[in-house]
Amino acid sequence: MSAPIYNRIALIGLGLIASSMAHAIRRGGLASEITGYARSAETRDTARRINLCDRVCDTAAEAAQDADLVVLCVPVGAMDAVMADIAPVLKPGATVSDVGSVKRHVIDAVQPHIPEGVHFVPAHPLAGTEHSGPEAGFAELYDNRWCLLVPVEGSDRAPVDRLRQLWEGMGANVDEMDADHHDLVLAVTSHAPHLIAYTMVGVADDLRRVTDSEVIKYSAAGFRDFTRIAASDPTMWRDVFLTNKDATLEILGRFTEELFALQRAIRTGDGEHLHQYFTRTRAIRRGIIEAGQDTAAPNFGRETKS
Amino acid sequence: MSAPIYNRIALIGLGLIASSMAHAIRRGGLASEITGYARSAETRDTARRINLCDRVCDTAAEAAQDADLVVLCVPVGAMDAVMADIAPVLKPGATVSDVGSVKRHVIDAVQPHIPEGVHFVPAHPLAGTEHSGPEAGFAELYDNRWCLLVPVEGSDRAPVDRLRQLWEGMGANVDEMDADHHDLVLAVTSHAPHLIAYTMVGVADDLRRVTDSEVIKYSAAGFRDFTRIAASDPTMWRDVFLTNKDATLEILGRFTEELFALQRAIRTGDGEHLHQYFTRTRAIRRGIIEAGQDTAAPNFGRETKS
Repeated sequence: MSAPIYNRIALIGLGLIASSMAHAIRRGGLASEITGYARSAETRDTARRINLCDRVCDTAAEAAQDADLVVLCVPVGAMDAVMADIAPVLKPGATVSDVGSVKRHVIDAVQPHIPEGVHFVPAHPLAGTEHSGPEAGFAELYDNRWCLLVPVEGSDRAPVDRLRQLWEGMGANVDEMDADHHDLVLAVTSHAPHLIAYTMVGVADDLRRVTDSEVIKYSAAGFRDFTRIAASDPTMWRDVFLTNKDATLEILGRFTEELFALQRAIRTGDGEHLHQYFTRTRAIRRGIIEAGQDTAAPNFGRETKS
Repeated sequence: MSAPIYNRIALIGLGLIASSMAHAIRRGGLASEITGYARSAETRDTARRINLCDRVCDTAAEAAQDADLVVLCVPVGAMDAVMADIAPVLKPGATVSDVGSVKRHVIDAVQPHIPEGVHFVPAHPLAGTEHSGPEAGFAELYDNRWCLLVPVEGSDRAPVDRLRQLWEGMGANVDEMDADHHDLVLAVTSHAPHLIAYTMVGVADDLRRVTDSEVIKYSAAGFRDFTRIAASDPTMWRDVFLTNKDATLEILGRFTEELFALQRAIRTGDGEHLHQYFTRTRAIRRGIIEAGQDTAAPNFGRETKS
C-alpha cells in the first residue's frame, strides 16, 4: 500500500460510481479519509450501514469542507446545483472533479462556480454496470478500464497529474482529451448504443402479437444482450441525452442511414452486401478482445446454469 | 446415463450448433453412434482430429445412410440442396430435423424432398455464441436454453415426442409453436437485434472523426455489448435475413418509428418521456433474470481483468 494521494476525498452522490471509488480508494490506501453525501436520507442510511465512507454527512457542504479532492458523482443535470452548494466551503488549493458522462455541459455548469484558487479537473471513468446505488459498488470496477481526464483550458498541470495518480491507483488506465472530442467519442461508444438498446427493448415490450413472456423466455437468441445496458439508471441517462444532444443525434442520424441501407439490402435480396457488412463487423470484436476490453469467452463468459 | 434415444444420429454440417449437439449427445448417452458431414474438407479434418463424431463422412448421403435421426445443421440457404442429396438414402421410419433460425422457409425448402415414410420435425435451439466451427462446440450450450419444435401439419406425434426427449436429454427446455409465429417471435428476440447490432458496429467503424482505436479502447462504455452478437457467423445471418424478410422488416419498421420518437424527445428536451421509457425497459431485464435466461451478476458476470 502506497502513501495516500489525497488527505481527504469527498464523494458527492453515493451511487454505483462513487461507491466503487470508495472501495477502490480503500483498497489502494489512496486517501486518509473519505467523506460522502447523498441527497436521499435512505441512501445516506444505507451508506452508513455498510460503512461505505469514514463519514457520511447530511449536507454536501459538510462533506466538502476541508476536502483536498471533491468528486461530483451526481447525474449530469444535478451538477450545477450541487456545485453552487459546496462552492463557499471549498478550501484554497482543493481540486474539484466529477465523473459525468458528458463533459462540455458539465464544464459549462460547474466552472462558473469554481472559486479563485480552487482547481477543476473534469473526469469520466468508462466503467459501470446495470446496477445502481451505494450497494452496487465494488473495488474492481475500474481495473483495466479507461478514465478520461478533460482538463479545462489554462489549468495547472499539478492537480491534473495528481488526479491521474488517483485513478491509476484505483486500477484505471488514464487518457486525456478535450471536451468536444470526448463528447463525440462517447456518443459513438456509449450514448448512441444505449439509446438503441433502450429502443429495441421498448419495441419488444410494445408488441402485442409477441407476448412479454415469449420475449423473456426466448431472449437468449440475442435480445438479452441489449437488456443489460437498457437496465441502466434512467435519471443518469435522461441527463446524458439531454446534455449531449447534438453529438448523439448526429450519430443516431448516421445509424439510421446505415440501417436503411441494410433494410434495402434485405428487401432486394442483396446477400453479397449483407455478407460483406457482417464480415467487417466481426473484426471489430477481435480488436476489442485484443485490446483487453472484453473477454474472448463465449457469451461474455456468462456462467452456464444447469 | 439413460438408454440411447436414437441408434444412429447424423449431423449434416459441423459448426457450433452441431458440434455442441455432438458433445451433449455423448454427455447424455443419447445415441449409439454419431455420424457427421461438413462441406469443407478442412472442417472434416478438424472434426476427425478432435474426434467430434464416431465417423466423419465425405458425403452427406454417406453420413445419413441408415441414420434414425438426420439433423440438418447448415445455413438456412443451404438446406434445399443438402436435403436433395440425402433424400435417396433415408431409411423408412427415419426422422429428419434441422436447427435453422427461420422455420417457414426451411419447411418450404425441405418438405418437398421428404420421402414417403420419413418424418420431418423442424426444430430451432435458441442458443449460440459468437464463435463458429467444429471446435467452438461445448456440451453445456443447451443447458437451460429453449428449443422450439415446429411440427408440420399432419405429422405423427411419436417422432415429435422422441425429438423432444433428445433435446431435453441435451439439457434444453422444449416448446412447440407454429412456423409463422416462430418466425415473428424470432424476428423480435433475435433477428432484429442482430441486424441492429451489426448496424451500430458498422457505423462506429465508418466514422472518420472517431478513430477505430478509440472505438476499441473505450468500448466498455456500452458499445462492446453490441459487438458480441455482431461477431456471429456472416453466412448464417445473411441467410436468416433473406429468408425471414417480412417479419424482420416489420420489426425494424417499428424500431425506427420508436427510435424517431426518442430522437424527437431528445431534440425537444422532453426529459419526462425519456425517463419513463428508460424506467420501463429496466423491468424487462428483471423478467429475463427471474426467468433464468441471464445472469444477475454485473456485466453479465464477465471476469474482471486486473
